Amino acid sequence: MIIAVIGNSSCSPKEAKLAESVGELLAQRGVTLICGGLGGVMEAACRGAKSKAGLTVGILPGQDSSTANPCVDIPVATGIGEARNLAVVKSAQAVIAVGGSYGTLSEIAYALKDSIPVIGLNTWSLSRDGREDGSIIRVQSPSEAVDKAISLAKRRENREITTPRQVGVRNDRRSKLPH
Amino acid sequence: MIIAVIGNSSCSPKEAKLAESVGELLAQRGVTLICGGLGGVMEAACRGAKSKAGLTVGILPGQDSSTANPCVDIPVATGIGEARNLAVVKSAQAVIAVGGSYGTLSEIAYALKDSIPVIGLNTWSLSRDGREDGSIIRVQSPSEAVDKAISLAKRRENREITTPRQVGVRNDRRSKLPH
Amino acid sequence: MIIAVIGNSSCSPKEAKLAESVGELLAQRGVTLICGGLGGVMEAACRGAKSKAGLTVGILPGQDSSTANPCVDIPVATGIGEARNLAVVKSAQAVIAVGGSYGTLSEIAYALKDSIPVIGLNTWSLSRDGREDGSIIRVQSPSEAVDKAISLAKRRENREITTPRQVGVRNDRRSKLPH
Amino acid sequence: MIIAVIGNSSCSPKEAKLAESVGELLAQRGVTLICGGLGGVMEAACRGAKSKAGLTVGILPGQDSSTANPCVDIPVATGIGEARNLAVVKSAQAVIAVGGSYGTLSEIAYALKDSIPVIGLNTWSLSRDGREDGSIIRVQSPSEAVDKAISLAKRRENREITTPRQVGVRNDRRSKLPH
Repeated sequence: MIIAVIGNSSCSPKEAKLAESVGELLAQRGVTLICGGLGGVMEAACRGAKSKAGLTVGILPGQDSSTANPCVDIPVATGIGEARNLAVVKSAQAVIAVGGSYGTLSEIAYALKDSIPVIGLNTWSLSRDGREDGSIIRVQSPSEAVDKAISLAKRRENREITTPRQVGVRNDRRSKLPH
Repeated sequence: MIIAVIGNSSCSPKEAKLAESVGELLAQRGVTLICGGLGGVMEAACRGAKSKAGLTVGILPGQDSSTANPCVDIPVATGIGEARNLAVVKSAQAVIAVGGSYGTLSEIAYALKDSIPVIGLNTWSLSRDGREDGSIIRVQSPSEAVDKAISLAKRRENREITTPRQVGVRNDRRSKLPH
Repeated sequence: MIIAVIGNSSCSPKEAKLAESVGELLAQRGVTLICGGLGGVMEAACRGAKSKAGLTVGILPGQDSSTANPCVDIPVATGIGEARNLAVVKSAQAVIAVGGSYGTLSEIAYALKDSIPVIGLNTWSLSRDGREDGSIIRVQSPSEAVDKAISLAKRRENREITTPRQVGVRNDRRSKLPH
Repeated sequence: MIIAVIGNSSCSPKEAKLAESVGELLAQRGVTLICGGLGGVMEAACRGAKSKAGLTVGILPGQDSSTANPCVDIPVATGIGEARNLAVVKSAQAVIAVGGSYGTLSEIAYALKDSIPVIGLNTWSLSRDGREDGSIIRVQSPSEAVDKAISLAKRRENREITTPRQVGVRNDRRSKLPH
């Protein structure tokens, strides 16, 4: 299972603490963490994951792997700039947003467009025509975020697995994942 | 001057009418219209622009120019899927959003990240930590949208032109634009 | 009809002269020129096209339209770096390569993958297993390049138009093109 | 260290055997394998790597992780189509091409543009103006390919590490890589 953690490349100490806890909890649950690979929330989440021996993937905007934060195991240098936001969320079965500015908002939008669950800690609220859009699932703590994300990611995986044409492939692949 | 019109590929008759008026007014003011090149709001805006002999550019997600709506003059087949949302807004000096779902939201986010003005007709509202984010400029009519967009696009152009290193290039280029 | 001219962002005077002639001839034949929007071969081709009142489109790697050469009418700021090479060729019905280094080679490859005709003036030769790959059509002059490109682009358009599902759309759109 | 294996999504049994051996040897040397994530050469290389407990990353063109071949550990769903070819090679310190058609050629071009070493087994030959371009390093066997790739990847890493601003980051990160 792969879960994305998204948020600003510079963040408050409070957000860094939240992100680090999220990273720790994901690693303890055997989840691979994917993120944008840079600093701030992304680095804090990776640091948390590495402290619990998790695996971290960083989808970088530039062409140079060395721009990844030091806690990224697998730096993917896309060379496509902010368009990499698409790849961060589409690779995940669920997304946890911690704070975040407009870059994070573009990632939330891309996830929701594809019905990938988005769990939010102190992040954006959306409304249209005076009505709130309830698609972002608001939680109050890292542990609630991780519980919710894993539970929804499992449901998403199951839905996909029951789609006949994919059964074999997904089962095969999943069983070979290091976690 | 290039202004983007963004919105859903399927839309209500009311939204189509708004978008068509926006397209007409942009063309009458000599503005090149850029959009995602598909149906719904995009097609309605292009249809409006063509009815007033405007120039229309469609930034398509796929590799096949023939997927453009029939009112696109210059179909750009990017082949990069939804990542083309980035190109739609970064190519514009201002953005007008008509309605819109999550794809439109990703475009709004990309524009705001780069301080490209976003004018909204019945589109998303954003808030964080209980406070509204006032970055989307709300208007009530197509003419108000176009007035506001052109005025802010000019301000953006001027700001850029006064940046010393770009003076020559931008003045040269702009003077050769067909509009 | 849209034809791409590809080549280095810095080039020899001889290559610039070839590219400028190609641009002139395309404009005289009413073809919209698409290119990567930067200097060298791209700028020379655009300069040629503008000298004959042609329309020029520049698909830029960065997010800033002002990086376009001064002879680009429609700068498309993709923000996706060298991945924009894909969009340059997929938007064209034929491609003319003038000289070129590895960036140009990636564009040739993308075009050939999709059977978009590539006409070469002093450009790459390809071979596999000791046998030459004859896909790049070698020509000796700008006029030969433009003749060949337009003739093959027409054949490609016709092939597409005869595909039933696209007839209406393509005929409609084409008839509204400014050229 | 990350090394890319590139080649066709459908391939001859001979190419599959070469790719599988390359995958095995990379895994035995502790190298993470990155590829385009689909079938043919990509799947054979991943199968080889998994048979030796290596780690495999697949950079997919689509938005759906389930399109990855069953031997990909980390599927990255980019959603950017063939533009993902850029990300495959830029993420690697060296590239091994096994056979390959035009998609592979675009990847070779992207790698060479950035001076990422390309090792070739039965792959493209390039020439310009009648002179062969010697940038692709031709080898005769999987073991020669892997030896050469690792040796050149090390040289590339060292060159980057001695660039002052990156010392700390790269050393930190590398020491935390699972391999």
